[in-house]
Amino acid sequence: MSVGSTARTRVHRLPERAVSEVQALHDILDAGLVAHVSVVTDGQPYVVPVGYARRGDEVAFHGSSASRLFRTLSTGQSMCFTVTLLDGLVLARSAFNSSMNYRSVMVLGSPRLLTGDEELDALRAVSEHLIPGRWEHIRHPSPQERKATTTLCLSLAECSVKVRTGEPHDDAEDVTNLSELWAGVMPIVEAFGVPLTAPDCPQGLETPSHLRQWTR
Amino acid sequence: MSVGSTARTRVHRLPERAVSEVQALHDILDAGLVAHVSVVTDGQPYVVPVGYARRGDEVAFHGSSASRLFRTLSTGQSMCFTVTLLDGLVLARSAFNSSMNYRSVMVLGSPRLLTGDEELDALRAVSEHLIPGRWEHIRHPSPQERKATTTLCLSLAECSVKVRTGEPHDDAEDVTNLSELWAGVMPIVEAFGVPLTAPDCPQGLETPSHLRQWTR
Repeated sequence: MSVGSTARTRVHRLPERAVSEVQALHDILDAGLVAHVSVVTDGQPYVVPVGYARRGDEVAFHGSSASRLFRTLSTGQSMCFTVTLLDGLVLARSAFNSSMNYRSVMVLGSPRLLTGDEELDALRAVSEHLIPGRWEHIRHPSPQERKATTTLCLSLAECSVKVRTGEPHDDAEDVTNLSELWAGVMPIVEAFGVPLTAPDCPQGLETPSHLRQWTR
Repeated sequence: MSVGSTARTRVHRLPERAVSEVQALHDILDAGLVAHVSVVTDGQPYVVPVGYARRGDEVAFHGSSASRLFRTLSTGQSMCFTVTLLDGLVLARSAFNSSMNYRSVMVLGSPRLLTGDEELDALRAVSEHLIPGRWEHIRHPSPQERKATTTLCLSLAECSVKVRTGEPHDDAEDVTNLSELWAGVMPIVEAFGVPLTAPDCPQGLETPSHLRQWTR
């Protein structure tokens, strides 16, 4: 597998932001919580957020078997799977050079329907991706629940990675002539808060350690 | 304008999560930083993150005139524009009832190319959406920079809003039979950090008040 190696995934705009390391691809996918998935129906693209997990050189995700998106996807139609992590606002001296710091992955391909043990393992992977250790603390899906769930995977064979980091890049004349203007980066952080116990839990039930210890 | 009123935007899955108030639509768009935009080329959908701003009953966004995405969009092709705000992980006693708390907007339509004063106002709106007050502290785009930028807007006429909030909804028998299992919500928060001054700013330059005072 190589990143950004097809005509459809080569980064044309700002190629200095293209990243070709498989490790960067994996790190971004492992750090994200939600992907934006697109399919086309009657020429109209639809974009929907989904939870997911990386499993080796694939991503797995699932949804309701009754949903239009998952009915369309389970026919193996061409799709796009994009994960974006926003790291900061890049505040240059000019509007034009203002930007964002981000890490993003775009995967193109046709999904494959998972069944049997492979499906169960993908459902476990999505749960473990969101909260490691949780799978052994929840009731696993019943046959009826699995029937109501469509679980898919998409190969990472055709993908691109684009990353911007660091300070603003202002025009040299702006740095000289507009030295009274502030420039810099406004960092953006996403974090978990304190877990909120559901009101239908027995009084005094302790928050399990796999939740207390897990941070982002 | 009414939310979720066409066959393409009516929420079929979990219709109790569909929201029809225009105020909710505006609030979600005003709270987001990045939209995921999709267009179709040769039957293949592509999904790319963009900064944006709401201007009344439209969203405005811009990108490089040289990018494939913006070249395709500027022909007025059908697109989808989705904003997702992730509020928490919903951790039920069962894998099946586990979910996410989120607020999302999906807009369908054909973008309109902005020019002249309307374009400049949209560029200002995107800047002000990200950091209110910043537009008067930066150099505005030159004619060449505006030529290198494609600015588009999309009507909110055809859209849907979907929201999930609150605690997990476990099956009644799971609440009774699996009372030893913890359930609840892991909140997710996104926040700005402390602004980092660029190294090419003069020593001692103070962070302006529009940055110090702006929080999310």
